[in-house]
Amino acid sequence: MNKTMKQVSFSLAATDGMARRGRIDTPRGDIQTPAFMPVGTAGTVKALYPEQVRETGADILLGNTYHLMLRPGAERVAKLGGLHVFMDWPRPILTDSGGFQVMSLSKLRKITEQGVTFRSHLDGSAYELTPERSIEIQTLLDSDIIMQLDECIPLPSEKKEMERAMELSLRWGDRSKTAFDSQMNRALFGIVQGGDDAELRGKSAAGLRSIGFDGYAVGGLAVGEPQEVMFRVLGEITPELPVDRPRYLMGVGKPDDILGGIERGIDMFDCVHPTRAGRHGHAYTRFGVINLKNARHKDDPRPLDEASPNPNCRRFSRAYLHHLVKTEEILGAMILSQINLSYYQELVSGARGAIEAGRFSDFAAETRAQWAAGDLPVIDG
Amino acid sequence: MNKTMKQVSFSLAATDGMARRGRIDTPRGDIQTPAFMPVGTAGTVKALYPEQVRETGADILLGNTYHLMLRPGAERVAKLGGLHVFMDWPRPILTDSGGFQVMSLSKLRKITEQGVTFRSHLDGSAYELTPERSIEIQTLLDSDIIMQLDECIPLPSEKKEMERAMELSLRWGDRSKTAFDSQMNRALFGIVQGGDDAELRGKSAAGLRSIGFDGYAVGGLAVGEPQEVMFRVLGEITPELPVDRPRYLMGVGKPDDILGGIERGIDMFDCVHPTRAGRHGHAYTRFGVINLKNARHKDDPRPLDEASPNPNCRRFSRAYLHHLVKTEEILGAMILSQINLSYYQELVSGARGAIEAGRFSDFAAETRAQWAAGDLPVIDG
Repeated sequence: MNKTMKQVSFSLAATDGMARRGRIDTPRGDIQTPAFMPVGTAGTVKALYPEQVRETGADILLGNTYHLMLRPGAERVAKLGGLHVFMDWPRPILTDSGGFQVMSLSKLRKITEQGVTFRSHLDGSAYELTPERSIEIQTLLDSDIIMQLDECIPLPSEKKEMERAMELSLRWGDRSKTAFDSQMNRALFGIVQGGDDAELRGKSAAGLRSIGFDGYAVGGLAVGEPQEVMFRVLGEITPELPVDRPRYLMGVGKPDDILGGIERGIDMFDCVHPTRAGRHGHAYTRFGVINLKNARHKDDPRPLDEASPNPNCRRFSRAYLHHLVKTEEILGAMILSQINLSYYQELVSGARGAIEAGRFSDFAAETRAQWAAGDLPVIDG
Repeated sequence: MNKTMKQVSFSLAATDGMARRGRIDTPRGDIQTPAFMPVGTAGTVKALYPEQVRETGADILLGNTYHLMLRPGAERVAKLGGLHVFMDWPRPILTDSGGFQVMSLSKLRKITEQGVTFRSHLDGSAYELTPERSIEIQTLLDSDIIMQLDECIPLPSEKKEMERAMELSLRWGDRSKTAFDSQMNRALFGIVQGGDDAELRGKSAAGLRSIGFDGYAVGGLAVGEPQEVMFRVLGEITPELPVDRPRYLMGVGKPDDILGGIERGIDMFDCVHPTRAGRHGHAYTRFGVINLKNARHKDDPRPLDEASPNPNCRRFSRAYLHHLVKTEEILGAMILSQINLSYYQELVSGARGAIEAGRFSDFAAETRAQWAAGDLPVIDG
């Protein structure tokens, strides 16, 4: 790769312990890292207008290849001007390979050396996803950061099975690199697999490094294992990844997972959790997670957090949010999804400032202490 | 009523045929008429933030007493500062009496001279709604325009039944006036009943006039009758109403109904239709109603209406809106509800300008001609 030509590049501004403060430059704008990427599953971050997503502080969205290839279809999105035009999000988009959701959502899937065949969970129609087709789809979507196709297996799994999937993912990584070719305006990320086994993870990282990617993702975590296993694997694997490339922990997670990921040298995260939790009546704040379905909020005139920089945390009472959640009003999903995405961005923004200032471990400790202190005391009836 | 003290007043700025251009002044802001009031059923206009509702041009919202008395409860809303504070809508709110939805939604309802007893459609718990309790609830909600309790019956009905309900509504109107007392910061509207019978309608209007209200609503329409019957009744009844009080056609309607209502001297409208239609994939535009579920939009890169003053009509392609509707994404409901409310406000705003300019009948004819011309031709594949 000719670094002087490549329009997607990563620069590291500061480190603090293993935590890193960086920036990914892309033709569609910069991504400040550590970054949290809201998930725009099927061409929309659920219950938010794109400008509202941007206003939370998000520099980049994630799009799901699996959902988009089924509906509206990659060729259709390309004809309509690409995913950015389609959903009116002019800034960077990372797309996954589709592999993860083929495994979790589709029917009658069959994995071979060539790729994976499956039937749509929507109408049963047949599809094939190969490393080459995944790159093609992501290119049709006009993605800025493209992920290789990999095989992600659940944890715990037998070592033989973890090894097989890791080796297959490596070969698919190699084919992805060839298929990606020398696209200058996009980045291609490889994905480390190997389950919870340090030796396999190391082998995967070494294999990917020798292929050479613009960034390195850690896949196969947050697939059923305890947080301590995830953190152990992360601690083992990030030292094996190139310092001068961004590191992305896929599908993670809750705020505490993100803090722990940053502590272990991760630069990028994505997760549906904040928007999904919002649709289910949960609000993430500096007080931790607050369940607005709970009757304790029924008569509470206080806002969620009057010191929050997010207006939605200050303007609506807990009683109103409780009411919206109980009556299943769309506005409840809208407000709580916005509040959660906003809090996630506050968290990574706070982490970025703390790393720059060389006080990330203090920041992490203070943040955790606030979560542990919990919500405001119940108001006196 | 001492008009020099009353803080809610109506002034007529212009008339054009029977169409009227006016303004209702309230302590919470002016309402330009003809006005369309979006319905904020249970303390939220579905799928819009309150400031988005205001940005469409709405001066006033409608709140549903029936829904709010069940959840979260009128006393609770009062303790939380009233409905304006609760939902963060600082401008005027009109509340209905609850009667209409008791008839259409509740279980085991029983009407007596005293009022109506019923069981909640949510949990079966028992309630009583009398003219006095309805005023009390609407006052607890801190409504700016309060409606009397009435009995609204379907059409067609026997004359005897229409007469009985009309006479009962008149007596309830009288009790409502007494219960409302001399509140200076709110208005009380009476409701004309009498089905599709001109004599009964005239008797109802005369009875209400002699009680004396701040405004007069026409109830018991849009309850199953053809549009021509509604228009005939309106044409007969508005001349019987005081010129110096606003006239409100309850629960109406589609854009064409609103145009016809304005033509017949109506000043205020409300309807759930624009937001409900939005949640079902229908968009109201100057081209008429567009069903975005239709496959003709699947590959259409054009916006709904590139000449619309509403950015949501210009920024998203029909293909994208089709995709959001087909995938049942919340953003689809958000965008289309906003588009419909915005179009309704454009319509009444256009009518206001046309009445001022003495060209309302031309405006109505042009608007109907555009609707009749229909949507843009299908794009060439």
